[in-house]
Amino acid sequence: MEWAEKLADIQPFYVMEVLQRAKVLVAQGRDIVRLEVGEPDFPTPAPVLEAAHRALDRDQTRYTEAKGSLVLRQRIARWYGTQYGVDISPQRIIITPGTSGAFLLAFGIVLNPGDRLAISDPGYPCYPNMIQLLGGVPVRIPVGPEHHYQLSAPLLLPHLSSGLRGGLITSPSNPTGTLIPNRSFAEVIALLESEKGVVISDEIYHGITYGEPAKSALNFSDQAIVIHGFSKYFAMTGWRLGWMVVPEEAMRSVEMLQQNLFISASTLSQQAALAAFECGDAFQDQLTIYDKNRCYLMAALKELGFIIPVEPLGAFYIYADVTRILAETGLADAQTFCRLLLEEAGVAVTPGLDFGQFRADVHVRFSYATNFSAIEEGVSRIGQFLGQKKPAPLPLEV
Amino acid sequence: MEWAEKLADIQPFYVMEVLQRAKVLVAQGRDIVRLEVGEPDFPTPAPVLEAAHRALDRDQTRYTEAKGSLVLRQRIARWYGTQYGVDISPQRIIITPGTSGAFLLAFGIVLNPGDRLAISDPGYPCYPNMIQLLGGVPVRIPVGPEHHYQLSAPLLLPHLSSGLRGGLITSPSNPTGTLIPNRSFAEVIALLESEKGVVISDEIYHGITYGEPAKSALNFSDQAIVIHGFSKYFAMTGWRLGWMVVPEEAMRSVEMLQQNLFISASTLSQQAALAAFECGDAFQDQLTIYDKNRCYLMAALKELGFIIPVEPLGAFYIYADVTRILAETGLADAQTFCRLLLEEAGVAVTPGLDFGQFRADVHVRFSYATNFSAIEEGVSRIGQFLGQKKPAPLPLEV
Repeated sequence: MEWAEKLADIQPFYVMEVLQRAKVLVAQGRDIVRLEVGEPDFPTPAPVLEAAHRALDRDQTRYTEAKGSLVLRQRIARWYGTQYGVDISPQRIIITPGTSGAFLLAFGIVLNPGDRLAISDPGYPCYPNMIQLLGGVPVRIPVGPEHHYQLSAPLLLPHLSSGLRGGLITSPSNPTGTLIPNRSFAEVIALLESEKGVVISDEIYHGITYGEPAKSALNFSDQAIVIHGFSKYFAMTGWRLGWMVVPEEAMRSVEMLQQNLFISASTLSQQAALAAFECGDAFQDQLTIYDKNRCYLMAALKELGFIIPVEPLGAFYIYADVTRILAETGLADAQTFCRLLLEEAGVAVTPGLDFGQFRADVHVRFSYATNFSAIEEGVSRIGQFLGQKKPAPLPLEV
Repeated sequence: MEWAEKLADIQPFYVMEVLQRAKVLVAQGRDIVRLEVGEPDFPTPAPVLEAAHRALDRDQTRYTEAKGSLVLRQRIARWYGTQYGVDISPQRIIITPGTSGAFLLAFGIVLNPGDRLAISDPGYPCYPNMIQLLGGVPVRIPVGPEHHYQLSAPLLLPHLSSGLRGGLITSPSNPTGTLIPNRSFAEVIALLESEKGVVISDEIYHGITYGEPAKSALNFSDQAIVIHGFSKYFAMTGWRLGWMVVPEEAMRSVEMLQQNLFISASTLSQQAALAAFECGDAFQDQLTIYDKNRCYLMAALKELGFIIPVEPLGAFYIYADVTRILAETGLADAQTFCRLLLEEAGVAVTPGLDFGQFRADVHVRFSYATNFSAIEEGVSRIGQFLGQKKPAPLPLEV
């Protein structure tokens, strides 16, 4: 039996291999510090669990309509008012099976076969895979610290002549934790829309920011497609629930596609998610913990020789340049660094190759969505590991 | 803003328009008999709800691994032993977000751009839409009562010369409720596999059969891709949980695709579903109710002039030929019949056009996944409706 050739283009996540190897080591009795997973490990707030219990008691487990529960869509619409000061009709909101589902719908309504969509390199690895699966062409634009690791109008401009269906912004970014500057965001949207391009804004890390809150693409345009969900700020990962805001005239297409691809999102998750909006205090506490982790890890990594040229002001990731560390230790690349760090020091981190090609072999991603003591232990182990790898300093000449 | 042109090829479900119109009528105070929905309306068995309560109490709501919970996959594997007498390794099973998710994965691993996949006409309307979205070409093969409304080797043969990537069997079928004869099933699989084609078997209605239980494609081949889930026999619709069995060598591709498209299926639903396997008695009771509904509705419809040439021995649908009724009443086609039946008699049924083109305008689908008294009321209203439409009989000449 032969399988679809296009699968050869779909890259596995290296982090999954890291995860599998970490599991093997754990099974061997090794204690592994996990700085590779992008999953919050906070307990679900009680009101969310209670809402789910109540829905079970009422046996509210049948299909909802394809667009999702109206009361949840109304609650999300209200949230756009309080969070961003924008007036969004519930008629523009669809509830999806995770943000993953939302991306399939977004790419589905936007991309004709061969359509090119600009994404940042580094970026979330599922984007190009999904775009290709739906017949589109991901255009990976290298972004460095000088652009806050984000797309910008000057970076997009040279690609317009060969035709761009649109661009995808992720701010805060996975893997870099950096935000697109507001002015640049406005410019990107204006540029793409002036070319009849579509802006897709992945706002899943909104809420997890440590300075100014992030602006939504909806602050700049009514035509943007915005994707958000309950897996990061609301920390409801396994509930698989997201949403999408689209221009009203696209809603019928989106709804039709949802009927065909998913029927509807989980009914129980929709019931539970409604309660998440009343748990602001719990999520604020989580944010305080993230920020403590972030400040400590950022300082410690710099101390150890990692280069972090732009302060990550969102999400729970640090994308660190290991050029100096590779030079000092003689290790070949970031993948080798990750492999040996796991095998020898028992610390799991993600190599840059998971996120693209641009300078990927000299970057690693740290996730600090874990507890503080694990991060301290990780830092201490990395310090020892590097100490062993670095040649002893030459004696000072006196 | 322009949206993807390919969306023009995606048909909305007419049943959705029927649904929306029915809602408007209900809002106007009309009482509507719903024989159009394909959703079981039984309460969820208590053990399933309890399992979900327990999972909430333990806050088991984080991501599972992409393939799904191992204990659920093991339970499903065991079920293949007891139900079908086949030995399936849990390593060949992946838990998906509904069977919808399973179809996206199956088409994703099978179809290269332009690959042709045979499906029956009439058939489930999401198939061709999903196939097209993933760049494939649905080849709709007209199937009539002489083939039990199912694909067969003789029907597939003429299409092999233009190249077929494979074929999709749905038995019991939506909309016809008919099963593929075992011998024909074996022949279809042998024929397609002899041409290195892939067999995808949608077995979502398995368990809901009123004679011999349906055979799985796995009874005939280890290479078949089998899709099943918890929404029909197990009546867990809004939980959005399905599964897929694939040849072991395809598993890595499937897992990779799942990571990219969905991350994983709902954790809570996976916990609850495990308990569903212990609720056989409840599901058996449901089956008894379905069968009573089926026998009554089938006889009543025949009495009223509907033609049902093959006994539907599975699912909860009757696909009835209205040729005679159209002739007697002078109504133009099945769509007109459905529209007027809803407006004038308050009975919602689905026109054949939702399921394809082949003789679609002279067929309607009845669903009997509702309570008996609603079906009785529906039959009585259809009788009155037809009585008013038919011209008075000519006086007998004596």
